[in-house]
Amino acid sequence: MESLKQRVLKDGRILDGNILKVDSFINHQIDPRLAFDIGKEFYNRFKNAEIDKILTIETSGIAFAVCAGYHFNVPVVFAKKRAGLNMSSEVYQSKVYSYTKQTCYTISVSRQFLSPGENLLIIDDFLANGQAVSGMIDIAKQAGAKIAGAGIVIEKSFQPGGEILRSLGIRVESLVIIDSLKNNKIIIREALEK
Amino acid sequence: MESLKQRVLKDGRILDGNILKVDSFINHQIDPRLAFDIGKEFYNRFKNAEIDKILTIETSGIAFAVCAGYHFNVPVVFAKKRAGLNMSSEVYQSKVYSYTKQTCYTISVSRQFLSPGENLLIIDDFLANGQAVSGMIDIAKQAGAKIAGAGIVIEKSFQPGGEILRSLGIRVESLVIIDSLKNNKIIIREALEK
Repeated sequence: MESLKQRVLKDGRILDGNILKVDSFINHQIDPRLAFDIGKEFYNRFKNAEIDKILTIETSGIAFAVCAGYHFNVPVVFAKKRAGLNMSSEVYQSKVYSYTKQTCYTISVSRQFLSPGENLLIIDDFLANGQAVSGMIDIAKQAGAKIAGAGIVIEKSFQPGGEILRSLGIRVESLVIIDSLKNNKIIIREALEK
Repeated sequence: MESLKQRVLKDGRILDGNILKVDSFINHQIDPRLAFDIGKEFYNRFKNAEIDKILTIETSGIAFAVCAGYHFNVPVVFAKKRAGLNMSSEVYQSKVYSYTKQTCYTISVSRQFLSPGENLLIIDDFLANGQAVSGMIDIAKQAGAKIAGAGIVIEKSFQPGGEILRSLGIRVESLVIIDSLKNNKIIIREALEK
């Protein structure tokens, strides 16, 4: 996705070696027109996949999931990161390890919002170690739902998440793939023409 | 906003006397087409207010803020609920009391995303006691920004938030105002024709 690629090159900042900071347009401040185009690109890539519902995770997946959901015209469900007061009889839960925060947290989705046989598109802003997406896949499986694939805004190919998910047979569509952040330079994989 | 009103009456559920559960289309599962229409309605109400930026708060304000931001074509900034590792030299912070969880939490916004003189529209999904919106107003004031008003998806008029904000001179535009949830019945205020 060329407009996103150019934006990452223009406004992305590299911190501490392999952290890409995109908080000026992705995950603290959001550019809504870009988010809408990102949603449309996810639609273009998965429009033949008969998506019933989009599953994402709070916080920064929501904007892109809602914009995708607009184009698909399907409901968007976001997994919550706080266990809250819900009982496990009411929610599906999965444990997710955060490498950034070096701690485990529980994500949950109300059982009423996922149904057996539903075809889910998972959306998230970043794919690095794949923990959040794996947690959503776990929850989808508990619900008996199918997974059409994962739409990712930015994938870091030098971390193992993409490989792990693809080796599980998950169709992963990343709009921008970062191959390296070495030497304070953002190297983005050239997209194959489709 | 008639479509929203009908949806609240159809899918809203009353819990424990004065909690309105709208998690099937507002704050756990989201209807993206409705969210887009809500964003458009905020635009219609504030389009002459020369909005520079939208300020909301994670999690459930984000969808509606992004949809509004699409129509205004301005950036959306969401306040974060975790203090994280940021130093106060980098962020504006405010304390917010949650009546639901009976605890105080800190919200923060990076200083780089709010500027003196900017005209902000605050967006949130619910207005009950007004704590979250008041925290955002506090942060906007620290940044020297102006507040054009607050766009609220659902206001509960029997809790004091709306009155508090209006008495401060804040223009509050609530798309649906709930006057009562007594006797397990949702009473929505009739909108004045504009």
